[in-house]
Amino acid sequence: MDSYKQLSKDELLAMKTELEASYNEKKALNLKLDMSRGKPSTKQLNVSMGIMDTLSSESSLLATDGTDCRNYGGLDGIPEARQLMAEMMGTLPDHVIVFGNASLTIMYDAISRSYTHGVLGSTPWCKLDCVKFLCPVPGYDRHFAITERFGIEMINIPMTDEGPDMDMVEKLVSSDAAIKGIWCVPKYSNPQGICYSDETVRRFANLKPLAEDFRIYWDNAYAIHHLYEDNQPEILDIISECEKAGNPDMVYEFASTSKVSFSGAGIAALATSPANLTDVKNQLSIQTIGYDKLNQLRHARFFKNLDGLRAHMKKHADVMRPKFEIVLDILDIELSGTGTGSWKKPLGGYFISFDSMNGCAKKIVEKCKEAGVVLTNAGATYPYGKDPDDKNIRIAPSFPSPEEMAQATELFVLCVKLVSIEKLLEEK
Amino acid sequence: MDSYKQLSKDELLAMKTELEASYNEKKALNLKLDMSRGKPSTKQLNVSMGIMDTLSSESSLLATDGTDCRNYGGLDGIPEARQLMAEMMGTLPDHVIVFGNASLTIMYDAISRSYTHGVLGSTPWCKLDCVKFLCPVPGYDRHFAITERFGIEMINIPMTDEGPDMDMVEKLVSSDAAIKGIWCVPKYSNPQGICYSDETVRRFANLKPLAEDFRIYWDNAYAIHHLYEDNQPEILDIISECEKAGNPDMVYEFASTSKVSFSGAGIAALATSPANLTDVKNQLSIQTIGYDKLNQLRHARFFKNLDGLRAHMKKHADVMRPKFEIVLDILDIELSGTGTGSWKKPLGGYFISFDSMNGCAKKIVEKCKEAGVVLTNAGATYPYGKDPDDKNIRIAPSFPSPEEMAQATELFVLCVKLVSIEKLLEEK
Repeated sequence: MDSYKQLSKDELLAMKTELEASYNEKKALNLKLDMSRGKPSTKQLNVSMGIMDTLSSESSLLATDGTDCRNYGGLDGIPEARQLMAEMMGTLPDHVIVFGNASLTIMYDAISRSYTHGVLGSTPWCKLDCVKFLCPVPGYDRHFAITERFGIEMINIPMTDEGPDMDMVEKLVSSDAAIKGIWCVPKYSNPQGICYSDETVRRFANLKPLAEDFRIYWDNAYAIHHLYEDNQPEILDIISECEKAGNPDMVYEFASTSKVSFSGAGIAALATSPANLTDVKNQLSIQTIGYDKLNQLRHARFFKNLDGLRAHMKKHADVMRPKFEIVLDILDIELSGTGTGSWKKPLGGYFISFDSMNGCAKKIVEKCKEAGVVLTNAGATYPYGKDPDDKNIRIAPSFPSPEEMAQATELFVLCVKLVSIEKLLEEK
Repeated sequence: MDSYKQLSKDELLAMKTELEASYNEKKALNLKLDMSRGKPSTKQLNVSMGIMDTLSSESSLLATDGTDCRNYGGLDGIPEARQLMAEMMGTLPDHVIVFGNASLTIMYDAISRSYTHGVLGSTPWCKLDCVKFLCPVPGYDRHFAITERFGIEMINIPMTDEGPDMDMVEKLVSSDAAIKGIWCVPKYSNPQGICYSDETVRRFANLKPLAEDFRIYWDNAYAIHHLYEDNQPEILDIISECEKAGNPDMVYEFASTSKVSFSGAGIAALATSPANLTDVKNQLSIQTIGYDKLNQLRHARFFKNLDGLRAHMKKHADVMRPKFEIVLDILDIELSGTGTGSWKKPLGGYFISFDSMNGCAKKIVEKCKEAGVVLTNAGATYPYGKDPDDKNIRIAPSFPSPEEMAQATELFVLCVKLVSIEKLLEEK
């Protein structure tokens, strides 16, 4: 197919008329589809139902260290849950605290704690005039919402195929003491599905930040969330890389089973250095006597170890893969060569990132919504909801069925074409 | 028995020798007993084992409003859990958000949120030079630890048999805008077991605080934790009393099932006005996508309603009551009339509060510890761990067995007598 840019005004107008007719037909179907969030489908939730039978009143509810999981205590989490989460993150259980059901809460609390009490004895951020964070873009809206809520100034860092632009990261953190952190999704990044290269991870570990309380917020949300059996990129363990580089305290790593077991009732964990763990627990001991250890036990007994987790994730992949492929196939067939957008083929994670022509993303999302297909708001993948080029759109194939995904994507490509043609006509 | 004060020096010295011999005998037993925390015993945990069988892979995991409890979402908690917790607190489900496993975390987060973002639009406390809290004493050490952690100045308020000294509370809150809150355990207060009178609750509801962001932190931890079937004091509902008084936003009420189901794996709730709920959720939506709804469902299905909770609490009372009575009987037999201490007979809750002669509490606790019986640190029931009279000791009968409780209390009264006699001898 020719690039739309090469078409004449008349050709574009003719296409527009045709596309509008198709759009109106689709609109008449009264679709109600939601591709906005990385929410597992019912089919995915069903693959974890065995968890519900893992513990009963007949089970021993003692952890391996003898802790009665029903009672108070155990701020670190029970040993078998620390072991499980450590294996998932590729680190050691000594680095791990297991929390409640949401890694988002661990991240929020980490920022909130730094704001109220500082980091390892540093000045609390609430006492500083200015705190800044680096935000690789496009990125995860809930990360940006946390830093925005605390009045932290966010600086966009472009993503490359190997991760964030490390030249820029190195230059900024070594020259500005107000920069206290960077949000990272190192594996199958949200939304692009990019995996950080070994060089990127090593450059992270070797950063020389001006701020002593600078931390890398390493949200390893998709550590084992592969789509393909035979093509599973692995990333370096940031914690040991930081140790090797003489920066053991520079990273907080987060993970959860939200997209492994149940999104509403999983377990989440923080992995970091002994000094950071002491710092975190010093405050955590005021906030709680301990998280839900029965749910930790349920998860540890059900999954057993990394092999158990991997076998389980194959079942998720079998549900997710066809939907990713449907979207990618339709994008390929309908949009390749048109010059109306670009996208990546992720090997895992939860999203497909689509870049439209500049200035078109909001209109595309709006047009989809008018016809009953809800996408993540355009701009959501950027700090403050502001995509400077108005081009990035996050597609979340997890929740709808394959049939719905096909319908939604058909509509999506129609909207991309229409909005792109309108844009090109404006420029003629 | 005569009051020790009336005894001569020789009589005291003779008693001392005798008591020291008994103490050394007990010490030789190498006891290892812990009466330090309000931690349920294994027997109590066992009464809730039915919860473990409430949900299985065969169960519907949909809440009454159709929410799939396995998935993301539901910031307020599921309807049946809100209903259950509302009934426990004596309020309406519309006032309730159900959280994770610990009301302590809800309280910490409430203070932390006020510190970072203010209350309903007020100045964040971190931007103020001075924030103060009123602390009825003796009180709960974990409350005081939260306010201390945030650098909040704590002011002791004496307790009466009807609750905190309301003359003092009224005078202080209406004259000092730095006073932003008061910690209350209105029913079976920790540690005294006092229930606030109707007049006290009404005076709370009618406070005229100078600070617009003043809140009553109403920790209704023992709402249904009665010891006796036939003598169950009820307190007024603070939320509706505040509404009647035109102060609907003045209270946050907290509760949990930590001492109903499992201490480590219960559910906890906040009840407050619609305006406060909106304020809280505004921040909560940044911190989490929702708490563990499967555990909420488990609790709602198991307990069903207030009748179910009450029937269940009888089983706890049957375990707890004998231990309370053992302690109280021994105190009565051994210490009545000696003038060495005073105590109250609680009708519920988790503690017995003992007041020794001034200046003796630390020594008594130390002496018990030397002989293998751990009590809550003397001073812990006061802000900053400082009991100005060094007299209050909190006894927690929940964890040991009745036999252990008898042994521990026998040692305790021995230590009380010994330390009191030493004190009296010093004064001779």
